[in-house]
Amino acid sequence: MAYQPPVRDHAFLLRDVLKIDQYAELPAFADASIDVVDQIIEEAGRFTGEVLAPLNGVGDKQGCVWNPDFTVKTPDGFKEAYKQLCEGGWTAIGSDPNYGGQGLPHVVNLSFSEMSSSANMAFSMYPGLAHGAYSAIHYGGSDEQKDLYLPKMVSGEWTGTMNLTEPHCGTDLGLLRTKAVPQADGSYRITGQKIWISAGEHDMADNIVHLVLARIEGAPAGVKGISLFIVPKFLPKSDGSVGERNEGAKCVGLEEKMGIHGNATCVMQYEDAKGWLIGEENSGLKLMFVMMNEARLGVGLQGVAQAEAAYQAAVSFAKDRLQGRSLTGPKNPDGPADPIIVHPDVRRMLLDSKATIEGGRAFLFWTALHGDLAHAHPDEAVRQKANDYMGLLTPVLKGYLTDKGFKICSDAMQVHGGSGFTEHFPASQYLRDCRIALIYEGTNGIQALDLVGRKLAANGGRAVMSFFAEVDQFVGENGDDAELKPFIDGLASAKAQLQDATLWLMQNGLQNPDNAGAASTDYMHLFGLTGLAYMWALMAKASLAKIAEGSTDPLYATKLTTGRYFVERLLPDAASHLAKLKTGSATLMSLPAEAF
Amino acid sequence: MAYQPPVRDHAFLLRDVLKIDQYAELPAFADASIDVVDQIIEEAGRFTGEVLAPLNGVGDKQGCVWNPDFTVKTPDGFKEAYKQLCEGGWTAIGSDPNYGGQGLPHVVNLSFSEMSSSANMAFSMYPGLAHGAYSAIHYGGSDEQKDLYLPKMVSGEWTGTMNLTEPHCGTDLGLLRTKAVPQADGSYRITGQKIWISAGEHDMADNIVHLVLARIEGAPAGVKGISLFIVPKFLPKSDGSVGERNEGAKCVGLEEKMGIHGNATCVMQYEDAKGWLIGEENSGLKLMFVMMNEARLGVGLQGVAQAEAAYQAAVSFAKDRLQGRSLTGPKNPDGPADPIIVHPDVRRMLLDSKATIEGGRAFLFWTALHGDLAHAHPDEAVRQKANDYMGLLTPVLKGYLTDKGFKICSDAMQVHGGSGFTEHFPASQYLRDCRIALIYEGTNGIQALDLVGRKLAANGGRAVMSFFAEVDQFVGENGDDAELKPFIDGLASAKAQLQDATLWLMQNGLQNPDNAGAASTDYMHLFGLTGLAYMWALMAKASLAKIAEGSTDPLYATKLTTGRYFVERLLPDAASHLAKLKTGSATLMSLPAEAF
Repeated sequence: MAYQPPVRDHAFLLRDVLKIDQYAELPAFADASIDVVDQIIEEAGRFTGEVLAPLNGVGDKQGCVWNPDFTVKTPDGFKEAYKQLCEGGWTAIGSDPNYGGQGLPHVVNLSFSEMSSSANMAFSMYPGLAHGAYSAIHYGGSDEQKDLYLPKMVSGEWTGTMNLTEPHCGTDLGLLRTKAVPQADGSYRITGQKIWISAGEHDMADNIVHLVLARIEGAPAGVKGISLFIVPKFLPKSDGSVGERNEGAKCVGLEEKMGIHGNATCVMQYEDAKGWLIGEENSGLKLMFVMMNEARLGVGLQGVAQAEAAYQAAVSFAKDRLQGRSLTGPKNPDGPADPIIVHPDVRRMLLDSKATIEGGRAFLFWTALHGDLAHAHPDEAVRQKANDYMGLLTPVLKGYLTDKGFKICSDAMQVHGGSGFTEHFPASQYLRDCRIALIYEGTNGIQALDLVGRKLAANGGRAVMSFFAEVDQFVGENGDDAELKPFIDGLASAKAQLQDATLWLMQNGLQNPDNAGAASTDYMHLFGLTGLAYMWALMAKASLAKIAEGSTDPLYATKLTTGRYFVERLLPDAASHLAKLKTGSATLMSLPAEAF
Repeated sequence: MAYQPPVRDHAFLLRDVLKIDQYAELPAFADASIDVVDQIIEEAGRFTGEVLAPLNGVGDKQGCVWNPDFTVKTPDGFKEAYKQLCEGGWTAIGSDPNYGGQGLPHVVNLSFSEMSSSANMAFSMYPGLAHGAYSAIHYGGSDEQKDLYLPKMVSGEWTGTMNLTEPHCGTDLGLLRTKAVPQADGSYRITGQKIWISAGEHDMADNIVHLVLARIEGAPAGVKGISLFIVPKFLPKSDGSVGERNEGAKCVGLEEKMGIHGNATCVMQYEDAKGWLIGEENSGLKLMFVMMNEARLGVGLQGVAQAEAAYQAAVSFAKDRLQGRSLTGPKNPDGPADPIIVHPDVRRMLLDSKATIEGGRAFLFWTALHGDLAHAHPDEAVRQKANDYMGLLTPVLKGYLTDKGFKICSDAMQVHGGSGFTEHFPASQYLRDCRIALIYEGTNGIQALDLVGRKLAANGGRAVMSFFAEVDQFVGENGDDAELKPFIDGLASAKAQLQDATLWLMQNGLQNPDNAGAASTDYMHLFGLTGLAYMWALMAKASLAKIAEGSTDPLYATKLTTGRYFVERLLPDAASHLAKLKTGSATLMSLPAEAF
């Protein structure tokens, strides 16, 4: 069975859990009543399921083809699908109305993005990268730059890219060498090689707006001397039409990769390419992080999105495949065997997946809603708290949800048995595609380090204290509810362990940063588990309320069972993460490099 | 850096930990003094590292090619390497001297097999499957069949296969339909389709001996009506030379797979193919399990082998890649950045891997040694206990070590960062290749079920009781040794949790088999952790003894550090597995199939 966009689950989150109607006074939500949003996500489901999903396997098999004239051919059907994407206005959902965008809440855009990524991850990266570039120009560009570039990027006529990595410099951007030489006309000449540039060249849009990190001649060494440049494939004329080719900006090759074959991962060669500075000199890293933070949330979303698609394939297989009998007697006595979904261990894999996907999706949507509040809520205290949450939780969502996404894709393959290892079933592609999400936009280890080394300590720990206070309040207000009790108990226990770990980090990480580094990944996972425990408590509460109102929709009972499963079978990992991180770094660091 | 066979670590296990010289009175060990074995594994290291490893990437990129004349071309170099394998006598190491084998201990064969699988998993499956077929004929064939087939299989001139799976029947062999019709000359005509037949057709050997499960006309339904047949590609003449083509046995296609591209995974079509019954009618499953149990141990070994190769690649990358600075100040101050092995989170991934690989290897070797004792020890009590261990531990080794092997290959990719996702580095191939090991020869879920449903209960739980008694004795004898204390404490704690889980299973699994099924995978992992804790205690004791003797080989100090890391950072998962499995099956089973 092909991917079915989880429209009903998205509606549940937006309507019953996040209750987005309560924000009608905010600009983005004014035109986004829940009824309107329901229609949008219905339509998003139709578009992604019917147009993008059928091209997913095609993209994997054909891949992208680089031509000696420095062009790249995308897989059959991608170009036409991209045209439909633009015509449907899907590139514009969350963008600024001043530049032709629809100005809808970020959380609504996220709903579309998840479906789009589930349906076709490689395809969805083209508009995904473009939106990151849009955000950086929107945030840091001059009015002239915004007027020139943003309308085309919002409409999708032009796409965009992020150019950070060079062969010798990935995580450590301080080492970057690409040079920018100022010209008399105010532009710059950019020279250097950038690698792993997703969507760096393709045949789907009229222009590609490369955002390139480079070092202006004479700039300070390290990360303080990095500036950000707009380097378009075609130089725009002042009327916004496409002018001559920026000859110095070329894709000179594609990477051969384990997955996301439908996305062009380019080696970009810049040789005296024409570019324009965005923002101030030497402030490129700050601007790049505008794109990066958005991208990191998007990558966390890819973890959930691939997991959802893979999970659906596994469920479908588990219901169809007849093999063996239930341990408690035949469940399909008239057939030659029972469907394998009767087996507890198959259910274990499916429920591990379902509980993590739905909890993770809620955590993403809940955080994205805070992004909307951070932008536009009238109360400064709300804005500050929301902004704190975005900073704190972005690395958790990126790292935790992509680690889990890969595990879920692997379990989905496992449910398929031998079929899963063949390329006749989609499990292999999901597993191969999703693996990159643990790496790009900062490896998950970098996310964990960002969390413990930067985000936790920012503003004296204000963000994490807010989060603890919010959870404590929720626990206090709901602790007496008998039906909610298992969820509240699970949440309180996870939060206590997270707080314990936080205290340990404060005491031990400051005195020896290696302790923080050694603890970082376990801490990130403990945080992820706690976040999901909170989400499951919120979802359980919303579901109980609907049942109390008399709803007979089986979704609510299913939510309660899945949430209970989360508490019983996934939360026990919290104690294991806590025990591991408290062992510190002594053993880890004592082994000399040559002994590995 | 290319794969370096871990010759020194194998020697440590065989000489210092297992002390194989103590078994000199057993026939297999008579010619296998530790000095001779040292030479064999040195030579095994040379052969696998120099001949097989360089073909690993070639096999992945070229794959196997099926031709319309039903032949299969293996990747360039495979045929020549196979010739060298045979000439070096590597196909004969563990085989019966009566048929030209060297009769060396199984544990020595395992050492070669690990290196061979690390160097080139796809290649090593050709002789691996052949050895499984050899074992089944050796166990169940008539003297005439043994005389006809075994010498050629031992020399490697002929290879072999296992034919179980059909499109509608994998795990559930009771559903199999392939038919065998008796002929007047005592042979049978075999008709049916078999899929996923590894090494089913290739161009490296003179003949391929297919062992095929089929149902003799009129046989009972289900697994009780299955017989095993020898169906050779070429019909042997009575002098042992190759005769006419068995026209009805053909490879009609190859599977497109995520990995092990160098191994031909065949769709075999049998149409009135000529075959001969092995053993009794309707006793095919028992014979197949002779191959299967050997194969399962071999698959557990593949988990460790791929992990070792991937780990080595990750270590090499982590030492070479300069990126960022140590959290405690520059460690490579004259370079542009520090090698990433200075970072605690990189070390965490590498040490998780190293501690699991070395513990897993020890557990495999230790178990394989029991295989040797089970065959040949003069004391019946020793034979029985060894045989019990083989039965009990085979599913643990297969399931636990391949689950962990995949995790380690994924971590190795993670250490590589973006490079790991490209096909220019070996990480992707290791990850893709090793994934099949979680599936074939019975999925890991099936291993877990075999463990809790069959092996645990066999003979009133005698095997697991022996294991507990052995661990208790070791703990008792060594508990007062201050230097060993952390290892003994870790082992005692893991064993107590495993015993607790075993008791829970006895109480709850019998009354409701779904409880056993729901607990099975966590139980298998808890068992694996306990086994490794025992191995690390044994290795620590052996290392301390060498240090006390005055050895200054840094290997021993490294073992102690790695073992401490295992206790501190991997054993905490035991509690998590115990907590999960004790939640039972109620929540898991309560969700209706349509709610997934």
